[in-house]
Amino acid sequence: MTAVESVGEFRFECGESVENLRLAYETYGEFDGDNAVLVCHALTGSQHVSNAPSSADDTEGDLGDAVETAGQARAWWNDVVGPGKAVDTTEYYVVCVNVPGSCYGSSGPPTERPDGEPWGTDFPPVTVGDWTRAQRRLLDRLGVGRLHAVVGGSVGGMNAVDWAKRFPDDVRRVAAVATAPRLDTQCLSLDAIARRAITTDPDWNGGDYYGDDRPTPDDGLAQARRIGHVMYLSKASMGRKFGRRAAGRGAFGDAPADPTGRFFPYREVESYLDYNADSFTGRFDANSYLYLTRAMDEYDLAADYGSDTEALAAFEGELLALSFTGDWHFTVEQSRLLADAARDGDVPTAHHVVDSDHGHDAFLVEPESVGPPLRDYLADGVAGRAVRDENDDDPSGGRSSSPDRAPVHASLFPG
Amino acid sequence: MTAVESVGEFRFECGESVENLRLAYETYGEFDGDNAVLVCHALTGSQHVSNAPSSADDTEGDLGDAVETAGQARAWWNDVVGPGKAVDTTEYYVVCVNVPGSCYGSSGPPTERPDGEPWGTDFPPVTVGDWTRAQRRLLDRLGVGRLHAVVGGSVGGMNAVDWAKRFPDDVRRVAAVATAPRLDTQCLSLDAIARRAITTDPDWNGGDYYGDDRPTPDDGLAQARRIGHVMYLSKASMGRKFGRRAAGRGAFGDAPADPTGRFFPYREVESYLDYNADSFTGRFDANSYLYLTRAMDEYDLAADYGSDTEALAAFEGELLALSFTGDWHFTVEQSRLLADAARDGDVPTAHHVVDSDHGHDAFLVEPESVGPPLRDYLADGVAGRAVRDENDDDPSGGRSSSPDRAPVHASLFPG
Repeated sequence: MTAVESVGEFRFECGESVENLRLAYETYGEFDGDNAVLVCHALTGSQHVSNAPSSADDTEGDLGDAVETAGQARAWWNDVVGPGKAVDTTEYYVVCVNVPGSCYGSSGPPTERPDGEPWGTDFPPVTVGDWTRAQRRLLDRLGVGRLHAVVGGSVGGMNAVDWAKRFPDDVRRVAAVATAPRLDTQCLSLDAIARRAITTDPDWNGGDYYGDDRPTPDDGLAQARRIGHVMYLSKASMGRKFGRRAAGRGAFGDAPADPTGRFFPYREVESYLDYNADSFTGRFDANSYLYLTRAMDEYDLAADYGSDTEALAAFEGELLALSFTGDWHFTVEQSRLLADAARDGDVPTAHHVVDSDHGHDAFLVEPESVGPPLRDYLADGVAGRAVRDENDDDPSGGRSSSPDRAPVHASLFPG
Repeated sequence: MTAVESVGEFRFECGESVENLRLAYETYGEFDGDNAVLVCHALTGSQHVSNAPSSADDTEGDLGDAVETAGQARAWWNDVVGPGKAVDTTEYYVVCVNVPGSCYGSSGPPTERPDGEPWGTDFPPVTVGDWTRAQRRLLDRLGVGRLHAVVGGSVGGMNAVDWAKRFPDDVRRVAAVATAPRLDTQCLSLDAIARRAITTDPDWNGGDYYGDDRPTPDDGLAQARRIGHVMYLSKASMGRKFGRRAAGRGAFGDAPADPTGRFFPYREVESYLDYNADSFTGRFDANSYLYLTRAMDEYDLAADYGSDTEALAAFEGELLALSFTGDWHFTVEQSRLLADAARDGDVPTAHHVVDSDHGHDAFLVEPESVGPPLRDYLADGVAGRAVRDENDDDPSGGRSSSPDRAPVHASLFPG
């Protein structure tokens, strides 16, 4: 169950403030003073990372009002986080916080201002750095100083890396899964198109659509989600799953919206996108989608520093970058940039590349690929048994852009 | 200048008919009985392929009403087609026909029904096969029997290949540029999303928006075009052209539409997409966009045959498949499928792969890559000097999926 904690006045990077930032979060397992693992959720994820019993349920007094957050995303990493799983909640105290700007209980556009009206687009624009600072604030309230690890995927991976930049003494191990130091131009474009789908929906109404009697910009948000789903899958995985097949009887949706549908088929892949878009509009807020995609787009590890390496130079911990060959949203090359930058800053680093054609979704749907390296990394850092570095197999550099670098964990832990 | 020819009653593949199909076309050069080259335009292209003087201007009598077609696309392959160019209009009689369903003068949704009202979505759904049959009809009127060549890029390449399938005795040389036997699932999805952008625009109004006093679905069509542009570029070319730069003063557009734009930048790449989307809505019809993307999506070379090879088995001519390494809309792998299928049907074939990071747009923006092989192919077929086959360099098959096949033009023309 989700708890919600008020962490007081919060000034966002943009300069705007809220009087009392509220953060929805879940915790799993028992804190022993040295075993806290912060898990950072992806764009439309929530604090509900696992179906394991949340220890926040036990919270009493003014620290955390236990609430049911209606419509929140399903436990999004239940295969990876829980008792006996890779992020083992019998061993670690796992904390996951809904990021400011989102819509699963933390302050954001759909929540109330002090005057009782919804914030809407008056909510301050948020950055990944704001998320990190808000998480730090919550962890202070929970009595967590140094984190054993921060783990996150996609923009949650940017959030995890941001911890190493912003609080370099506070994290022992950062696991950055399917992420990048910054988004590339192609994905920036698709995100901008997705936002435009929302803002050109007349029901968006300048962001002012809250209230039971008012239509929500479902068409626009659905379009944004369809675009997102194409980004999350790969050419190969889409071909394998759907091919060019017509949707069968009983498929979600029943016809293409365009007039040529009187002769041409409604396809399985369109039905899949429509189904996911429809369920998404039921669980996510359109303004939050604008805010969170913008936070992702704007993240740049090197910002305020000369380079990614300088941004990570003060980091005292280790870094695991985990990437997937079929991911075109956050590519292997981008993870390599991140790993190389960290190594150049003398951060013990492994870049573990998973051969997969699942696309970006791989980090969610391949627990068998993600779990073992993550488990061993949490236990033993980059020396973990299942942790591979792409330079390991071929120290001459066959798979790496850094042929002159010896494999990191081999050099740190010879033999 | 464009001429328009009525070719009589036309029954579309869907079973619906129009009483009198009108086809807008241009011709360049003089027909000598054996030198006709049909050029097939891409999705939103037109009959206006070159700025060379159009010989259709000389057309007299009832064959071709010379017209100015307002707003038609610029000469889209002027660097490739014209006097002294790769498709040399002093040597060949070049014909380019606006496809049925389009909006540059041929019958389509924005044109008039016999009752004087616009067709709108009552226009019959069109297929690439309909385009081929309509072109055959026009060529009959022009007195062209067998074509020296059919050349086309993108869905125009599907159109070119369809000639080999549908009229296998009528074409000596097919040049299929940046195309595929059928679209893949990822691109089908993006096209479906683009159509949804149009049909969810309230101004689309079920396709009934014609008339000076009525709004056109510009927001939806602009979104469709933005999505298209991302498909036409590559990750690398987008990164190189725009990076993550903010748009400068004087850029087209001035602000992102989303509320976080009060803190975050409007980017060059968004300005580029907005500029192109805006100019597109001024020159293209939203219903036509629905019809033509559907024709592209539905094309399947193997349809009505057991396989691509069987579809091409009766073809008496040669095939050049020309593809670009950075093209993710119509990939090198898809061109290879096409080439392999033709070879399996004993069609003399070359698959010429251009190393390029321009994406799908390469066939339009790299005349220096496209021109020489195309020129030599028109002159000498797959034996043409500048025509490479991907198997040439390494007959053992290093670059090919067909390692057991000898290079075709080497085997046909030893030495």
